Amino acid sequence: MPGEWYAGLKKPLWNPPGWIFGPVWTALYTMMAVAAWLVWKRGGFAMQRRPLALFLTQLALNALWTPLFFGLHWTGVAFAEIVLLWLAIAATIPGFRHVNRTAAWLLAPYLAWVSFAAVLNFTLWRLNS
Amino acid sequence: MPGEWYAGLKKPLWNPPGWIFGPVWTALYTMMAVAAWLVWKRGGFAMQRRPLALFLTQLALNALWTPLFFGLHWTGVAFAEIVLLWLAIAATIPGFRHVNRTAAWLLAPYLAWVSFAAVLNFTLWRLNS
Repeated sequence: MPGEWYAGLKKPLWNPPGWIFGPVWTALYTMMAVAAWLVWKRGGFAMQRRPLALFLTQLALNALWTPLFFGLHWTGVAFAEIVLLWLAIAATIPGFRHVNRTAAWLLAPYLAWVSFAAVLNFTLWRLNS
Repeated sequence: MPGEWYAGLKKPLWNPPGWIFGPVWTALYTMMAVAAWLVWKRGGFAMQRRPLALFLTQLALNALWTPLFFGLHWTGVAFAEIVLLWLAIAATIPGFRHVNRTAAWLLAPYLAWVSFAAVLNFTLWRLNS
């Protein structure tokens, strides 16, 4: 996905090497799937409507970020969007904790990574505009 | 998906019967897929980065609406979100037309339906708050 445009951006010194993103996202998506399953098995959508809706909201916001940043190169809009993603994850965690503490903990590394990604997104936006 | 909460909402007289949504969305998603394929086959992401990124943006915004409206019952937020969806579709159409006129036309019924859905969302929000 990155490609020429990303390669050509001015980067901060602490920019992580490109190969790190694949394994990190694979691990985060796996933990996300297990977390959602732990909540879902406690009565499905009928019983866990609100926490699962928050989860699906953050998942859709996660899906939205990639075309904004890498597709349209709208780095400022992508930053505003990742802030909404961060808020949606931060709202999902207490919703999950209410149902299953493990499910909530499984989202903690995800929130930490998105915090870092938001700072990186902000820095790339400011350095290149 | 609708369920009890939706059944209990105050509806306008022109509210469509529930059975209409399934076939309509099936037809719209099929047309969307064909449209994206017509654009994608003209050089893939490398050549059609911008129109395909606009398409993926509208697709993610489309995915976001359901948990906001039906999951969280945030009808006002869902209305604001469907306005963004409408804008993203309206931006995708000229991007597609530039590559393939048929692809653009295939999205016209989708834009018309989302216009109607936005008015319906607005009305349900105002009637029930």
